[in-house]
Amino acid sequence: MERIELRTHERAEMIDITPAVARAVARSGVRAGLCQVFVPHTTAGVTINENTDPAVRQDILYVLGALLPRTDPAYRHDEGNSAAHAASTLVGASQTIPVHEGRLEMGTWQAVFFCEFDGPRQRQVWVQVIGR
Amino acid sequence: MERIELRTHERAEMIDITPAVARAVARSGVRAGLCQVFVPHTTAGVTINENTDPAVRQDILYVLGALLPRTDPAYRHDEGNSAAHAASTLVGASQTIPVHEGRLEMGTWQAVFFCEFDGPRQRQVWVQVIGR
Amino acid sequence: MERIELRTHERAEMIDITPAVARAVARSGVRAGLCQVFVPHTTAGVTINENTDPAVRQDILYVLGALLPRTDPAYRHDEGNSAAHAASTLVGASQTIPVHEGRLEMGTWQAVFFCEFDGPRQRQVWVQVIGR
Repeated sequence: MERIELRTHERAEMIDITPAVARAVARSGVRAGLCQVFVPHTTAGVTINENTDPAVRQDILYVLGALLPRTDPAYRHDEGNSAAHAASTLVGASQTIPVHEGRLEMGTWQAVFFCEFDGPRQRQVWVQVIGR
Repeated sequence: MERIELRTHERAEMIDITPAVARAVARSGVRAGLCQVFVPHTTAGVTINENTDPAVRQDILYVLGALLPRTDPAYRHDEGNSAAHAASTLVGASQTIPVHEGRLEMGTWQAVFFCEFDGPRQRQVWVQVIGR
Repeated sequence: MERIELRTHERAEMIDITPAVARAVARSGVRAGLCQVFVPHTTAGVTINENTDPAVRQDILYVLGALLPRTDPAYRHDEGNSAAHAASTLVGASQTIPVHEGRLEMGTWQAVFFCEFDGPRQRQVWVQVIGR
């Protein structure tokens, strides 16, 4: 398992981590299997979406922000980041991607994004590659 | 890894792909492991839910449509499908299902659905089965 | 594959199942791989989030309840649990967690939660551990 360090710079941000994940797959030596990208945090997540037009990420973050209000009198958690915890559950703490012929196999327009919902912070992403 | 072709017919649609996924598991020869169902698109997704009453799928698509407005002056992506990208991130690009005694092991009421959010289109689903 | 029985006590509830999942990993004998936690139900789910402050779970359930109205004249499914089906799709029917040095490897604040959306009921969680 590899542990990748990254620094986020905004409160909410999607960072393309595909190159680092692809390098971990290459180093694993696995030819056919699964690559798991796991975020060990409870106010962040990981998703697969389009990386060609940066406006797609902006719109996804905008939609999440509109759905999950940052403050709400009903919230009971006192750190002010309940919306970030909810976003983490909705987006998910991990993604799995096929490994085929020794490479991360994704669609033409897909990339893997670390999703920061309560930054800026120092963060990690773990990459586990299994197969043969 | 197997690549399954499918054609969607609606803008938003959930298509039961369980039989095709089960055939890929059978062909893999794996007796115990995991089956990953991966969608290589950024405006589609895959989910597991009930297939007995078709109204369940209609209600899930209705809920997603109500949460994610198709047009919004704040959207910056100019292809008009920002809501479909957001739905892809919320539903997810892949599902993993246990393989037990050589078969896809799911609950009595569960089925695997390809989720189209920006159709109709020609689409693919990739199935990767790992284990022994 | 192990099958864990659990009883839920509320209509909507998040139950920390980390100890039971960790025991299944230990029993599997796998040292490096993936642990899949799979819910064979269509009105429940599984997520990874914080277990230190119980208010986090209350806020996540509150947010889901606010997003997904229990009754809506547009719902067509006649069992009155359409919102629970939608929550299952948004949260997801499974999570995968890295197994490293024979143990479930998660972040300091993370725990695995069974998410009940249509309880109380008798439920199951399946745990599949693969690797070497």
